[in-house]
Amino acid sequence: MRTRSTASGGRRRRERTAGAQSCRRVDYTHLRNPFISQGAFSEDRIEAVHRTALRVIQELGIRVLLPEGRKRFATAGALVDEDSRMVRIGADIVEAALATAPRSFTLKGAVAKRDQLIEPGVLFFTAGAGAPHVTDLERGRRPGTLSDYRELIRLTQCFDAFAMFSAVVEPQDVPIHIRHYATMAPQLTLGDKPPWIFARGTPQVTDGFEMIRLARGLSEEDFKANPWCATVINTNSPRQLDVPMCQGIIDFAEAGQMSIITPFCLAGAMAPITIAGAMTLQHAEALTGITLAQIVTPGAPVLYGSFLSNVDMKSGSPAFGTPEQFKATLGSGQLARRIGLPWRSAAGSAANVNDAQAANENQMSLWGAVLAGATNIKHAAGWLEGGLTVSYEKLITDLEALQIVAELCTAPQADTDALGFDAIAEVEPGGHFFSSRQTMARYRSAFYEPLVADWSNFGTWTENGARTANQRATAIWKKKLEDFVSPVTDPAIGEALNAFIDRRTREGGAPPES
Amino acid sequence: MRTRSTASGGRRRRERTAGAQSCRRVDYTHLRNPFISQGAFSEDRIEAVHRTALRVIQELGIRVLLPEGRKRFATAGALVDEDSRMVRIGADIVEAALATAPRSFTLKGAVAKRDQLIEPGVLFFTAGAGAPHVTDLERGRRPGTLSDYRELIRLTQCFDAFAMFSAVVEPQDVPIHIRHYATMAPQLTLGDKPPWIFARGTPQVTDGFEMIRLARGLSEEDFKANPWCATVINTNSPRQLDVPMCQGIIDFAEAGQMSIITPFCLAGAMAPITIAGAMTLQHAEALTGITLAQIVTPGAPVLYGSFLSNVDMKSGSPAFGTPEQFKATLGSGQLARRIGLPWRSAAGSAANVNDAQAANENQMSLWGAVLAGATNIKHAAGWLEGGLTVSYEKLITDLEALQIVAELCTAPQADTDALGFDAIAEVEPGGHFFSSRQTMARYRSAFYEPLVADWSNFGTWTENGARTANQRATAIWKKKLEDFVSPVTDPAIGEALNAFIDRRTREGGAPPES
Repeated sequence: MRTRSTASGGRRRRERTAGAQSCRRVDYTHLRNPFISQGAFSEDRIEAVHRTALRVIQELGIRVLLPEGRKRFATAGALVDEDSRMVRIGADIVEAALATAPRSFTLKGAVAKRDQLIEPGVLFFTAGAGAPHVTDLERGRRPGTLSDYRELIRLTQCFDAFAMFSAVVEPQDVPIHIRHYATMAPQLTLGDKPPWIFARGTPQVTDGFEMIRLARGLSEEDFKANPWCATVINTNSPRQLDVPMCQGIIDFAEAGQMSIITPFCLAGAMAPITIAGAMTLQHAEALTGITLAQIVTPGAPVLYGSFLSNVDMKSGSPAFGTPEQFKATLGSGQLARRIGLPWRSAAGSAANVNDAQAANENQMSLWGAVLAGATNIKHAAGWLEGGLTVSYEKLITDLEALQIVAELCTAPQADTDALGFDAIAEVEPGGHFFSSRQTMARYRSAFYEPLVADWSNFGTWTENGARTANQRATAIWKKKLEDFVSPVTDPAIGEALNAFIDRRTREGGAPPES
Repeated sequence: MRTRSTASGGRRRRERTAGAQSCRRVDYTHLRNPFISQGAFSEDRIEAVHRTALRVIQELGIRVLLPEGRKRFATAGALVDEDSRMVRIGADIVEAALATAPRSFTLKGAVAKRDQLIEPGVLFFTAGAGAPHVTDLERGRRPGTLSDYRELIRLTQCFDAFAMFSAVVEPQDVPIHIRHYATMAPQLTLGDKPPWIFARGTPQVTDGFEMIRLARGLSEEDFKANPWCATVINTNSPRQLDVPMCQGIIDFAEAGQMSIITPFCLAGAMAPITIAGAMTLQHAEALTGITLAQIVTPGAPVLYGSFLSNVDMKSGSPAFGTPEQFKATLGSGQLARRIGLPWRSAAGSAANVNDAQAANENQMSLWGAVLAGATNIKHAAGWLEGGLTVSYEKLITDLEALQIVAELCTAPQADTDALGFDAIAEVEPGGHFFSSRQTMARYRSAFYEPLVADWSNFGTWTENGARTANQRATAIWKKKLEDFVSPVTDPAIGEALNAFIDRRTREGGAPPES
């Protein structure tokens, strides 16, 4: 009987396939967000936030600490009071800037595969960044070092779900006047993704640009023609743009490089306690930064940025993955769509250890950003303590969620064979599909293969050492580092960079400016 | 200067508010899904799945093991082959059933607050159910007992985010012929939410109905007028309806009680390996069950049910939180909307311990269900090992995600005060909002207060014992049990139930039927 032979064939097949090598090919680059963007406010309320933000900029003004910044704004017609350093910018100036800010551009990698199209509808992730500390199960929590930084550059290079590099950890063992060399070089020699630069004054920024030109073999003109790197500009909320951030906008815009203008608005602390009010402040500050970039260079590549959460009213600490953050993120997406620009949001966690809280917060903020239609989701993996620590294990466990979101970007098959009538007809009631023709044709590539999830049953899992997700993640990152091979094979690149760094170090490097 | 005085006022305020009691009121009952439902397939492909499922039912047929079930189908005009027990149901019969299945009804609780409206657009959660084992940090993993069951009934009563009871754990220390008394009584004496009944044969089901009538003081007529309890009908995929499940559909439909018709389709095992094919099988089986309920009693309250995931091709184990499950859930929501019925989906995790994998899987499947527009999300908290174990800690940590989703069901304020122009005008550039008028008016109730998340900084957290989410969750469930007071205050209810149970036990109870 067909059922019986199918059944025994099925058992054999199951044994054979257990442990069988998969031939599944995945590509987590160049994603487009598959979801309909969701909002938290009616369109007229979003318009009201936008209009109120314009009033904040025009009537209340923004304090701009850099004289050159005030001068640029004044040249464009803004009202500048040099005593108070307040800049009041007319709505017409902002609207003109929004008209020149590009809707679509390409952030260039070392190879075409790593070019990242940036426009509304695109989705790309970057790892948690800017942490002073790192932690892992074996070495514990500690101040970040260059060795940690280099490991984390290798790890973020390994996984395609990270589309560009980020300054994962601050290497505190490197003196600050030469630290930017130490952080740029590995981005150019250990990987091929677009690198990251902190805007800590013109000398450091121009050093970074020069290193990119050296590594990529670009003339100044080639470099200016496309963005090859990115920085984040954080305003000093409320309503203040400090010296290095303002200089960063100018430097990046002049060089045609990408600025992500991101007020960090904590509702109830540096921003109004209401979600709508915090959005108004964020929008006012982001528009100010975007406007400056466009005044400097019309068409300069910018991202609208949102990193809006609330504080814990008990401790004053930033909280992540909260319903307020979720709603604010949805609202920020509406604002980004209102002005038509690509934009960045963020995930993250305030937990102190990579446990259920940490996973839940990261994923909750991730879903807020995905559903808000964020173009770039920063800090998408690894953040503990609201960004004070990056966890090696969490980088891996969060990455699983990112890979699953990446899988959701491809539509399931629904042709006649996939609809399954013939497959269902082939299997008797109460039987199984292990050895059906359809299964046999597809089983090696049908399903996502987990990175860190262990689906074995309790008995098997216990026999195998009862390893938690963090323990398995440890094995994964260690193996990845062990097997790491840089995609950069031309020794001339490292040599040119080293020669540059040696010279600049002899010249005294470039301390951060503020 | 204003900035300074604001700053020092802010510090004082922050100290005063640290640890201040909140006056935030929350209501996590009667939620409506705030999101635009998302799909994974084009509308024409959903129509193709629906049509293919109708062909499966009509051309291939479903094996119905209960003679009474076959008789009912035959009476309605289906083709029945008694030798093979196959039932072939014409599309016209299915369409007629879909026309009488109610779009909207109310599942009744003991008090009006617990009445749960059930219709498309509503969202309600139930805890993980049906587990043979329980686990907690202090007592370890063990077979479930009545004592565990009663604790878990208390815990699911405590939190409003659970709208009805579920059979969280199987109390294996109670003999099976009287177990249904032991599981029903606590649902009626320790809480006021709608209870749950397993369909394990007519005698057990009618015992359960009688206990509800006794506890709620209902005549047979009152009872039949509304659903007061629910059951899940799992088909024996593929294409088979076994004796107790078929009898359950008949018993619940005759009594006007709610059936959730849920094929458990594991793609690649008991269902086709393709998502679309597994959906076709699920849809065929769910439509068969819904049709039987409507043949028995036109207008009988039913939910369309989906519990579709894939197996791990390495071990054959069910996997949860996978991209395939997510897409299948979105597709199932599209099918539910195609037939216009409220429906249930599920969250869950296949992890063996409540770690980052467990949290990520539960939340990933939760988001699939939320975005698919599921009316009821079952197994929304607590499941480990794909449902073989319910974890006390995980019940709490997952609940945090449910509460946050519940918070997302309310829109943020966006009136003129909330838009924040005045608040922003009040605070100097670079200042803070801790003591702004808007903050002072709102700080006690502005933000969600976490259940288990700890947002204190690393130093404070370490000083406080470096407790993980699981350890904090343990303290939470223990405290909840310690403080538990049943909302059922009338001693006559317990007495009536005890008298009934004593009599039925003397009569021999009611063993499960199959």
